[in-house]
Amino acid sequence: MNELELIELAKKYFKPGPDILVGPGDDCAVINVGTEKLLLLAVDQLVSGIHYDPVDTAPEQAAKKLLRRNLSDIAAMGGKPATAVLAVALNMPGTEQRGAWLEKFFKSLAGEARQWDMSVCGGDISSLPSEGAVFSLAITGYVSRDHLCLRSGARPGNRLVATGSFGNSLDSGRHIDFLPRVEEGSFIASRNASAMIDVSDGLLSDSAKIAAVSGCSLLLYSSEIPLNKYASLEQALNDGEDYELLAAVPEKYLDRLVSEWEFDAPLTVIGEFRKGAPGRIADSKTGREYSPAESGYEHFNP
Amino acid sequence: MNELELIELAKKYFKPGPDILVGPGDDCAVINVGTEKLLLLAVDQLVSGIHYDPVDTAPEQAAKKLLRRNLSDIAAMGGKPATAVLAVALNMPGTEQRGAWLEKFFKSLAGEARQWDMSVCGGDISSLPSEGAVFSLAITGYVSRDHLCLRSGARPGNRLVATGSFGNSLDSGRHIDFLPRVEEGSFIASRNASAMIDVSDGLLSDSAKIAAVSGCSLLLYSSEIPLNKYASLEQALNDGEDYELLAAVPEKYLDRLVSEWEFDAPLTVIGEFRKGAPGRIADSKTGREYSPAESGYEHFNP
Repeated sequence: MNELELIELAKKYFKPGPDILVGPGDDCAVINVGTEKLLLLAVDQLVSGIHYDPVDTAPEQAAKKLLRRNLSDIAAMGGKPATAVLAVALNMPGTEQRGAWLEKFFKSLAGEARQWDMSVCGGDISSLPSEGAVFSLAITGYVSRDHLCLRSGARPGNRLVATGSFGNSLDSGRHIDFLPRVEEGSFIASRNASAMIDVSDGLLSDSAKIAAVSGCSLLLYSSEIPLNKYASLEQALNDGEDYELLAAVPEKYLDRLVSEWEFDAPLTVIGEFRKGAPGRIADSKTGREYSPAESGYEHFNP
Repeated sequence: MNELELIELAKKYFKPGPDILVGPGDDCAVINVGTEKLLLLAVDQLVSGIHYDPVDTAPEQAAKKLLRRNLSDIAAMGGKPATAVLAVALNMPGTEQRGAWLEKFFKSLAGEARQWDMSVCGGDISSLPSEGAVFSLAITGYVSRDHLCLRSGARPGNRLVATGSFGNSLDSGRHIDFLPRVEEGSFIASRNASAMIDVSDGLLSDSAKIAAVSGCSLLLYSSEIPLNKYASLEQALNDGEDYELLAAVPEKYLDRLVSEWEFDAPLTVIGEFRKGAPGRIADSKTGREYSPAESGYEHFNP
């Protein structure tokens, strides 16, 4: 049983209750709290030796990455972050070192949170039997009902737009130093986007998810995809951890979105949704069919 | 730097933002969502080899314990649970065994959640570099503004009441099979209790927390404390993981609370708050001063 099968297993059992508008299967769960604003809830982990190299990664970098991964999930719903709780399971040799490392981690997480107009409001600390560290951050945010952007809303004819550029995230260190597209996501959601996701697993993998749950196929303009420095198209398609946004936009709203775009990161049209086998992706020029590489960074919600 | 010092470190850096009415330092964070009901948010972990024995503990038991520990935090605020997100970091030998174990864990967690009128609405799964399992559950709940019960509200003259009985939780298996006092907590909070906490670290340790943050000392009627089977007073005072509730109740409301009490678990008056050194506990009969044993199960909020 691999990661993807485990996620299917979780989805099978975790059925959302009555006030949960969106449960497992999107970037965040969406909860009706009885106001015009909906509550978003997601959780992400940062595991030493899996998501960061404990030797090369400074505590400040680890803290930023943890928070920014979560922020990217909020961004993908068109939301604004609000608060978070942190769980730490830790076994580091040397209690003095451990204290110094954690102090830097906490300080950086708190400072980073402030910069995104949110706060860490509590948590839990535990020991671990063997050496290592597992950080888990559960984040909340809000989105107005009008602007909520799920994965499942893409329709045939919608264009696929992408923020920023793709590929080589790991070697360049961008997987730690990226800026989550919170403002951009909120802007896109407010301009009639029909679906949105953030790219954690890879451009192909994540655009296939939108297509699959929306019941569409996707024609990819692969030559239009903005590449990062030293990144090949293959890397841009599969590397993952770009933390850019992919959105489906009805054609009639596209011009306005592009002309009003006010951010440094570019917004590029990189494909269009079609009637066809749900989740199938083909190249607009070559007709080549893509099959997304499997990834170990899957989420089952959130 | 020990666990308690780490928690102080977290409290030092994690300052709640404007909509957070209660941040690190209580059983749950309390968040203003713009309605009469306040949102509660907490996180708890279950670590293999720390909180449960991976050889002796069935996945169903582990799942129940994880959820019930969280529910106990919601109960301690006088709240009702709503939803949760689950993070799993896992390295179990044998992918087949792993799948079977996790299926039982998910199924049990989902079923248990339903029984408490809540649902798991998402999560994240990751691998771990070395063998083990870390489960982290972030829970939300609601409490009406009128009934919110913090740790800090006890006043001199208030009586200390306790639900249930204490001690020997580990050997008896009660630390896994306990029933969180959700209904009881809501009942106590609605009957003018001034402060409340759940007993995870130990009766002494947790009642000292109420006394300390409320600026009171505590006179403990140690002979009144209900003991579990095979439990000595010493164990009842220090064992921890009883997951009973301790509450401070103004004297004028005590009779009504006791006479209207409608639950199977007994409600017992076991002490009174006094003017005096904050957090100091003395025995009402012997005058003996208690100093709570340090615990590794500390939270810094939540």
